[in-house]
Amino acid sequence: VSATAGSPARADVRRVAVLGTGLIGGSIGLALAQREVDVVGFDASDERAARARELGAVGAVASSVEAAVDGADLVVVAVPVGHIAPLAIAAFDAGAPIVTDVGSVKAPVVAEIVAARPDRAACFVGGHPMAGSEQDGVDGADAHLFVGASWVLTPTTETDPAAFTTVRAMVGLLGAEAIEVEPAHHDALVALVSHVPQLAASTLMDVASAGGGEHRILMRLAAGGFRDMTRIAAGHPGIWPDILTANRDAVLQALDAYREALGAVRAAVAGGDREGLLDMLKRARIARRNLPVGTPPVEELVELRIPVPDRPGVIAEVTTLAGRLDVNVFDFEIAHSGEGGAGVIVLVAAATGADELEAGLQELGYHVARGALE
Amino acid sequence: VSATAGSPARADVRRVAVLGTGLIGGSIGLALAQREVDVVGFDASDERAARARELGAVGAVASSVEAAVDGADLVVVAVPVGHIAPLAIAAFDAGAPIVTDVGSVKAPVVAEIVAARPDRAACFVGGHPMAGSEQDGVDGADAHLFVGASWVLTPTTETDPAAFTTVRAMVGLLGAEAIEVEPAHHDALVALVSHVPQLAASTLMDVASAGGGEHRILMRLAAGGFRDMTRIAAGHPGIWPDILTANRDAVLQALDAYREALGAVRAAVAGGDREGLLDMLKRARIARRNLPVGTPPVEELVELRIPVPDRPGVIAEVTTLAGRLDVNVFDFEIAHSGEGGAGVIVLVAAATGADELEAGLQELGYHVARGALE
Repeated sequence: VSATAGSPARADVRRVAVLGTGLIGGSIGLALAQREVDVVGFDASDERAARARELGAVGAVASSVEAAVDGADLVVVAVPVGHIAPLAIAAFDAGAPIVTDVGSVKAPVVAEIVAARPDRAACFVGGHPMAGSEQDGVDGADAHLFVGASWVLTPTTETDPAAFTTVRAMVGLLGAEAIEVEPAHHDALVALVSHVPQLAASTLMDVASAGGGEHRILMRLAAGGFRDMTRIAAGHPGIWPDILTANRDAVLQALDAYREALGAVRAAVAGGDREGLLDMLKRARIARRNLPVGTPPVEELVELRIPVPDRPGVIAEVTTLAGRLDVNVFDFEIAHSGEGGAGVIVLVAAATGADELEAGLQELGYHVARGALE
Repeated sequence: VSATAGSPARADVRRVAVLGTGLIGGSIGLALAQREVDVVGFDASDERAARARELGAVGAVASSVEAAVDGADLVVVAVPVGHIAPLAIAAFDAGAPIVTDVGSVKAPVVAEIVAARPDRAACFVGGHPMAGSEQDGVDGADAHLFVGASWVLTPTTETDPAAFTTVRAMVGLLGAEAIEVEPAHHDALVALVSHVPQLAASTLMDVASAGGGEHRILMRLAAGGFRDMTRIAAGHPGIWPDILTANRDAVLQALDAYREALGAVRAAVAGGDREGLLDMLKRARIARRNLPVGTPPVEELVELRIPVPDRPGVIAEVTTLAGRLDVNVFDFEIAHSGEGGAGVIVLVAAATGADELEAGLQELGYHVARGALE
């Protein structure tokens, strides 16, 4: 795959099929329509699909997966976690060239698709936009939902470079920033920053409100901190049993780490360990204040050109290294030198961290050249 | 005490001494200055007091507790929990007619003051504004910090009606809504809605950030829900060892309830109990959506006139009953019939709940008459 310099993103994404036209699928459709991409939608509910059409979230409604997939450059599966794999497999069965998804859990989904269609596994690229809304359904869809948000992609050693580049291009069209992480690693991370926080917030709300008759007065005492902390408990609960079931092991591990830490806090309160409590609170304060906010500032960009053997594992190796080093990758393409053989990854990254990335790549045996950005 | 109908609040609060000119003391000073109350400030740090004067949070700076208290109708102690009782006692020693505080823990503070100055215990009215800021120090002070906020007052069976009325008037001047609760009950409630949530948020942030090298990528995955939930972890940790020590037993009880509930959630995740998880999440969602927001809607008001014997316990009995029944009390005064003897509590309450309050008062042996509000 070689993309033109002008708009590498647009070239590969002309027609997208969105399977599942809810909040996320609808938001993807709205945003892609604004970028003049043809969007065709399919939903198990005719009513939901019709509503998506009405709102302009899809340009056309297909009556079957086969009809939706027909002619699409890319298929986006945007349904609850438990339904992703069957639908992705159906999309491949219908001839989809590339499939991605937006599910909150990645490893079991990727594994199920690989097991069912090993021949097409290279063209499935798992995805997970780290954005959501308290709203529900396509009526809450928003073309700007993903602007500035992180969007995890989970290429594996099997992933086809062309498929990866296309999915990454779509993420770019939506205004999100792609971060590449291995599937199981993603699941462990979201257990910590999403799944366990949801359980922690809902449980706290449930415990606080359990006082029965006292509930009303208690709730009047709840100030901003409590409101902030329990806000996610107001979200739609329907998605969670699926997610918690699919990501069971990672959730249990993160939940146990949280419970153990709360046990240590309990001991510190009981024992009057003021220093210990203060240390924990200070560490947490520093970590919270270091949370990145919004879009990163405009930085100097550096182009790295990396000659690579033309084999699938290369994408995962290079991109997950960049992810691990937290180097922002603003553009990514693979230029093949010809039939088979070697190619060159051209990667545009933030200058901060580019040295580290270059060193890391060299350690992995790559020869990296810095190109000029005009 | 009998207040005039026109502005019952102003009559008693002409000059206030604020001891401790930080964020809360400064905000009280700024708000009272706007209501043309004379505010004199004292702070252990001359620099902090001078800064408060510069910002207009106090009209004058006193060089000692004695000087600050001199001529004040009311003394507000706005220092960290561990320092409240000594300072309140010093204020009484200096001749303060009425003292209130703004500490997050009430029962031990009230007990310490009662033990040290049993002769003045009737004129200490514990207080706790349920409002705060991520800011710190008098530079973060805001005259509107308390507008629409709940402000707990903790009268006891010893509390003097005049002292209570004056403190309640000050709360009204600040735009806050007074809620009366017994001191120990307050401590149990704030453990649930403030102290344990702070520990839960900071612990979660600490656990999530413990990954070391993974921290940076993890933090990029943190979406809005995680940010909301950990926001209070960014606050100043210095106040917490004091609060957690002072409210140790109530915090442990609430923390254990939380840990036990998380244990049940863990079992549900491990056992794949989708229904159980969904039930908890649904309960929490309903409770969160029922959190009152902002100022309550304008409601029909009812005046209740309650002839009472002129003894201190009456205030606590009537107001904590209203608190327990969650009846909004918008105005409160005691009209004494003459020297000693009986008086009449005139209480303006929201119509919703007034029947319940009336019934509760009659059960306690009071004879309640409904007055007309023009």
